Amino acid sequence: MTAMTARRGRRQGGSAARRAAVAGAAIVHHPEIRRGIPLMEVTNQEGVELIHDFAMRVVEQIGCDFQDDESLDYWRRTGAEIDGERVRIGRDELMQLIGTIPSSYVHHARNPERTVRVGDGHAVVSPSYGAPFVRDMNGVRRYATLEDLNNLQKLNHMASTVHIAGGTIVEPVDIPVPHRHLHMAYSGLRYSDKPIIGNVTARERAEDTVEMMKIVFGEEFAVNNTCTTSLINANSPLVWDETMLDALKVYAVNNQAVMCSPFSMAAASTPASNVGTVGVVLAEALMAMAMTQIIRPGAPMLFGVPAMTVALNSGAPVHGSPDSAMVQFLSNAMSRYYKLPHRGILNVATSKSGDMQAAYDSMWGLFPSMLSGADWLTMGGGMLEGALTVGYGKTMIDFEQLDAFYHFLQGPKFDDLEEIFEIVKRVGPGGHFLGEQHTLDSKLFIFESQHNNSYEQWDADGRLESEAVGVRKAQKWLRKYEAPEIDEALDEALTDYIARRSLEIPAN
Amino acid sequence: MTAMTARRGRRQGGSAARRAAVAGAAIVHHPEIRRGIPLMEVTNQEGVELIHDFAMRVVEQIGCDFQDDESLDYWRRTGAEIDGERVRIGRDELMQLIGTIPSSYVHHARNPERTVRVGDGHAVVSPSYGAPFVRDMNGVRRYATLEDLNNLQKLNHMASTVHIAGGTIVEPVDIPVPHRHLHMAYSGLRYSDKPIIGNVTARERAEDTVEMMKIVFGEEFAVNNTCTTSLINANSPLVWDETMLDALKVYAVNNQAVMCSPFSMAAASTPASNVGTVGVVLAEALMAMAMTQIIRPGAPMLFGVPAMTVALNSGAPVHGSPDSAMVQFLSNAMSRYYKLPHRGILNVATSKSGDMQAAYDSMWGLFPSMLSGADWLTMGGGMLEGALTVGYGKTMIDFEQLDAFYHFLQGPKFDDLEEIFEIVKRVGPGGHFLGEQHTLDSKLFIFESQHNNSYEQWDADGRLESEAVGVRKAQKWLRKYEAPEIDEALDEALTDYIARRSLEIPAN
Repeated sequence: MTAMTARRGRRQGGSAARRAAVAGAAIVHHPEIRRGIPLMEVTNQEGVELIHDFAMRVVEQIGCDFQDDESLDYWRRTGAEIDGERVRIGRDELMQLIGTIPSSYVHHARNPERTVRVGDGHAVVSPSYGAPFVRDMNGVRRYATLEDLNNLQKLNHMASTVHIAGGTIVEPVDIPVPHRHLHMAYSGLRYSDKPIIGNVTARERAEDTVEMMKIVFGEEFAVNNTCTTSLINANSPLVWDETMLDALKVYAVNNQAVMCSPFSMAAASTPASNVGTVGVVLAEALMAMAMTQIIRPGAPMLFGVPAMTVALNSGAPVHGSPDSAMVQFLSNAMSRYYKLPHRGILNVATSKSGDMQAAYDSMWGLFPSMLSGADWLTMGGGMLEGALTVGYGKTMIDFEQLDAFYHFLQGPKFDDLEEIFEIVKRVGPGGHFLGEQHTLDSKLFIFESQHNNSYEQWDADGRLESEAVGVRKAQKWLRKYEAPEIDEALDEALTDYIARRSLEIPAN
Repeated sequence: MTAMTARRGRRQGGSAARRAAVAGAAIVHHPEIRRGIPLMEVTNQEGVELIHDFAMRVVEQIGCDFQDDESLDYWRRTGAEIDGERVRIGRDELMQLIGTIPSSYVHHARNPERTVRVGDGHAVVSPSYGAPFVRDMNGVRRYATLEDLNNLQKLNHMASTVHIAGGTIVEPVDIPVPHRHLHMAYSGLRYSDKPIIGNVTARERAEDTVEMMKIVFGEEFAVNNTCTTSLINANSPLVWDETMLDALKVYAVNNQAVMCSPFSMAAASTPASNVGTVGVVLAEALMAMAMTQIIRPGAPMLFGVPAMTVALNSGAPVHGSPDSAMVQFLSNAMSRYYKLPHRGILNVATSKSGDMQAAYDSMWGLFPSMLSGADWLTMGGGMLEGALTVGYGKTMIDFEQLDAFYHFLQGPKFDDLEEIFEIVKRVGPGGHFLGEQHTLDSKLFIFESQHNNSYEQWDADGRLESEAVGVRKAQKWLRKYEAPEIDEALDEALTDYIARRSLEIPAN
């Protein structure tokens, strides 16, 4: 029954999406980012091999703790040395296990037109993640609600350079924790038709996510393709806890992708060194990723690092710094060395509001992740306060930065050079290009929310700063938002499932 | 007499600087930026050669107007084809002329400890430039005064990653235009001891700048070394006016460096194409630079492009966009092709205030200029409103970004890897690195003005946004500023010169 419903839903995705596209004609959905410029490097082959050797010495000599019996049982199928929870493994066997992880995978959306490839030169952007607070339209910081999550799903759905729906764009704190995952998955499926991010906070919650994917895609399809990508964090240094391992196992066995992303905080959970940080987190991530290949060889997995730095003056983990940028570049180089898709972090500010520092912080994530060639770019927009808060205003301003990088990464355009030479000849010294058809047809990038008119005009327009401009844009987008079509039977099947599970699972 | 005074001043520079360094012990002056990471490229050799060929076809077939008889006389010494003001030249002869421009040069400061090399892997940062307005400590936008210029000289002098004094950091609008250049040169020499930027707004003003350098360095030294670097703009497309050419000639004949930097506004003064823009401005810049080598072979010259884009919706030139970034990368690649030092633009915002967009705009200048390997980085901090205004608050926040890039460009550190491995082994899974001596000794970068403590603490601290934090920092720095020592006789010679010239030159 459920599977049949799902198949109907999936078959109708294409035409539904086309209808939606006509209804919301203003929305442009960019395909995956394909770069027209070379990758940027911060080190050479020798540096990469030094880090590899460091990580291999960690897995061989120090090892990693797996706080979960089932995981240890998996390791017993290998030549790994197991001592209590501690697992050590030789580099050759580790590399062999890692070798079955695909260098790219297809992540299916309920609307096939939004299905994306991740890796092998295809990069995708996903929304903000995991914040319990919003900075709302009035500039008030408060707990996020399901309404906020749905609003942010809508805004991310409409953003040209966001390829993925949530996930926990914000935590809907008004929903009891044990039921939250059901509503988060539904929010992504209902208010967007882009691929979704899975739940990881308990084994059953991961299982519910997989069940909901079976409803959408049909059982056979859902467990033999990739319909969710999820994010798990190690407790660095070198510890994987039962909760994270449970989610990882559920997803791996069902062929769902997982970003294995140690929670690195240089100077606290990893060494006070960018190279050392990458070496340690690589060891722990590679071991988790290897374990998934014991469970299901070929299950898609991604390597990534949050790359925070702990400020020794306050003890706070700080996002967005030259050191976090260096870790992003280095971890990406290592991903390429192992031919693994890489998860980068785009856009997390330490600032409490959408001020100048917020944008600077964000840019220290955007440029390394965009330029190093990361394949999955999390935290597309809006994150403040070190990922504790999502700001509506910042979300909208950040979206324009994503579009700008999308434009930049296309690279320089050479194909109209002959035409341009003829124009320069005709215009001649002292002329101008404003009226040329080539100019009118050009697509040079201008930030929509940038006030590029005179100071006097800005004054007359109310002296709005960009966070306020972003809030107005969010309000405008929410007014014009149109939900992507969804098959009624599919919607009913999903809401039925949520209703049933909400009765089965105690709310506290 | 003057020359003798100057020599005394120069000889005493070293010990004076040492005394100053002790007095203002908190100031760290970074040496030139030397990069520990590879250059970033946006195109390949084929792309570079396509642009070269385009530029060569422009100089050969279209040519450039030189609106100055003396310049045309210089061109008559070559095989150039001259038709009225229009000059066309063959690519081989142009390349031969360009070939005598040094790939780097030493720019002398009155304090030899602040003398820098520019080019050949040594990059320097100079302050904001040319703004008639300030956004003052109270957030009021008003005309800049000499006091503002002096204040900003002081702040730039104290900035670790600013290597150069002004120049017209802001225009001292309270000084009559015909006298302004004297006070601008003096401001840089008196309130800083870093190398200075020259005046270009009339032949006599450039000559006065050279005369003041003779006072500082002695006549013989001043005209056989490089003691100023100046900035001239072409009237793109393909026109050099008499004023700019006059300044260029004065500086070239005296071996002073000049940035030949066409005033490019893509879609208006250059084609609506990044590649086409670089092709056109390259043609005009190379012709001006070639002319300097007829005058004095070996005179140091730099190529650069402001790289604005005209917003077709408002007609306004916009700084800081993915297209301006592309132009920065491409123009840098061309500079390297011709072995010419390259001038990049760091930090110009289109925003009217120090808001989120201001930082985003700035970062679209910072990252291409810093990563492409530009040798002279203008507009170090503070520019708003498309270079019309310098903000005190933004200046200070921007300085921290400069320090961050200085840190980043050092590249990854591998030399403590063995020590780190031993620490990881000792700390082990589940431990932490906070108390380790290696951590305490580490120099991971934290932004000083970034509030990285809790939201509650930020609230208790008055909810300051970063522009306000920057203003407070400016006030603090100005309170603790100590002028670098200057020989009294030198100071007197300079003020005497200014007094004499102010009587000679009518104020209006």
